[in-house]
Amino acid sequence: MDSINIKDIARICGVGVSTVSRAINNHPDINPETKNMIMQAIKEHNYIPNNSARNLKRTDSKAIAVLIKGISNPFFSKMIRVFEEEIQKKKYLFIMQRVDASEDEVDVALELIKEKKPRGIVFLGGFFSHSREKLEQLTVPFVLSTIGMTDSLEESSSYSWVSVDDFAESYKMTDYLCKLGHKRILILAATQDDESIGRLRLEGYKKALVDNGIEPDEELCVFSEVGRDCYTMDYGFMSMSRILREKKVDFTAVYAISDSIAIGACKAITECGGKIPEDYSVAGFDGLDIAHYYNPTLTTIRQPVEEMAESTIKILFDVIRGKAGHQKRVFKGELVEGESTRSV
Amino acid sequence: MDSINIKDIARICGVGVSTVSRAINNHPDINPETKNMIMQAIKEHNYIPNNSARNLKRTDSKAIAVLIKGISNPFFSKMIRVFEEEIQKKKYLFIMQRVDASEDEVDVALELIKEKKPRGIVFLGGFFSHSREKLEQLTVPFVLSTIGMTDSLEESSSYSWVSVDDFAESYKMTDYLCKLGHKRILILAATQDDESIGRLRLEGYKKALVDNGIEPDEELCVFSEVGRDCYTMDYGFMSMSRILREKKVDFTAVYAISDSIAIGACKAITECGGKIPEDYSVAGFDGLDIAHYYNPTLTTIRQPVEEMAESTIKILFDVIRGKAGHQKRVFKGELVEGESTRSV
Repeated sequence: MDSINIKDIARICGVGVSTVSRAINNHPDINPETKNMIMQAIKEHNYIPNNSARNLKRTDSKAIAVLIKGISNPFFSKMIRVFEEEIQKKKYLFIMQRVDASEDEVDVALELIKEKKPRGIVFLGGFFSHSREKLEQLTVPFVLSTIGMTDSLEESSSYSWVSVDDFAESYKMTDYLCKLGHKRILILAATQDDESIGRLRLEGYKKALVDNGIEPDEELCVFSEVGRDCYTMDYGFMSMSRILREKKVDFTAVYAISDSIAIGACKAITECGGKIPEDYSVAGFDGLDIAHYYNPTLTTIRQPVEEMAESTIKILFDVIRGKAGHQKRVFKGELVEGESTRSV
Repeated sequence: MDSINIKDIARICGVGVSTVSRAINNHPDINPETKNMIMQAIKEHNYIPNNSARNLKRTDSKAIAVLIKGISNPFFSKMIRVFEEEIQKKKYLFIMQRVDASEDEVDVALELIKEKKPRGIVFLGGFFSHSREKLEQLTVPFVLSTIGMTDSLEESSSYSWVSVDDFAESYKMTDYLCKLGHKRILILAATQDDESIGRLRLEGYKKALVDNGIEPDEELCVFSEVGRDCYTMDYGFMSMSRILREKKVDFTAVYAISDSIAIGACKAITECGGKIPEDYSVAGFDGLDIAHYYNPTLTTIRQPVEEMAESTIKILFDVIRGKAGHQKRVFKGELVEGESTRSV
């Protein structure tokens, strides 16, 4: 008798061949009971998928892959810690994969799915402007965590999304500085061509200025070099040092789009003999622990990082386990007043 | 004809059954050519290991697992970033696993090896006082990175070790403070029962005092509560605030065994109206980026974190690929003078 094949298993179980294939390949899109039944039949009938070499190479660990753009951003360190903790609680492996700024994260994810078969994916950081067609190639559930995206994608129900409203939170901070009496607010932004949260925060800043009767001045918009990791103390320090040295623009407040940038800017101001907040008010964004411990304490927008990270994993597992559909969750940031800003 | 079995494969290849098993199970302890030959024979003769269900569950990803004790230590964030980058370059998966302070990292590793079959393991942080017998159960190559250990283990050639000399570097910092004229140097140490780098740094501090003719004063040795994550700004802040409030001890310098602790201490001093370094000199350990950007810049021991992390991965892959045996590498720290210390 010829050995049993995939069609026999499908016939025995009363399902289609593709369903058996999904069971064997641990595709998430299969009813767990059906899968159990199929695996049982495979075992009982001693069916062996025909490419044994491929089979030996199969990776079938229960794993969640986290793809990170901007791995040096300390804000992500805390997210990653919570991800790891939550994923470990679920007894899944935590696979961490860095994506370079120039790489396409969906291509990286497609490769990873093919090779490693994670049960779910978290995209952390970066920007999503991929077409719907491209995203539909992603055959495992995924959540976009603190990622900017194009409006057209926001309505899709084929994935989840967790973030603060970067535009609104940035508006809030800029409006706060305006209400303190600042009219010349310099922004340390991301790159000029940024399409991610950097752009959203810049737009929130501009809108708040306009609503406070201040015309945005392009000279006060400082951008990072393209291709450079910009959410860093180094960027804040270097650009603020240059500005203070050149003395081309006047300003009374600096709004940095991340706390790391703000701390670098504080250092540059202090090194030049300036005082914070007497000479310059400085504000950041993120709410890192160091914002509280810095000297002076930094005025910032605190993102609820633990809750956002926990929510990311909860949503992902709800989808994996079929408990709920995809969700969009927008968290509220909190404006924390530090000693680094004052009214003028 | 009966189907081919593992003995047949062994006979065909002229190797033992256990070697075939090692090839199938991706055991690291096999010559790559032998393994290739065996896998080829398996494919040609359509041999299927007899437990197909187990086979379907096999995890055979090429992965390196990194087990971390003290995941909230920012020093490790940078190590992890470099690990991820280097492991990705080798086209291996990066599996991150946190180990709680109360957990036995070797037990966690044994479980991980059984379930996930990583090709190599990095232990990051914590302390190794495991018996040689226990370590010998670890069947995949491993490297201890920035980990304290008992002397008896140091001579073992069954694993690699990468670190600075915590005793010597701590001695260097304390000696520096003594040479600045400080005689009352308070140390913010780890827990009292610490057996890891915390103990080594404390011992280096005591030895330097003695060599400078200063009797170590137990009142100046401040310990963290047991079970608490102590390499944190929070610990530095809370303990320094308490000390300044109680006013029980006199001191002119504070040596914190990590930069995070030092920054917390600086914040407490500043909040109490103290000036650094006028009222108190403060020194740290690690050489985090923030030590440079803090206000004032922090005197610290800079560990060559990138090199240490790169070396960890290089050594691990050399062992995995049979290019070299296990190595012990001790890196040199650098005393970086900041604005936070002065001579008295």
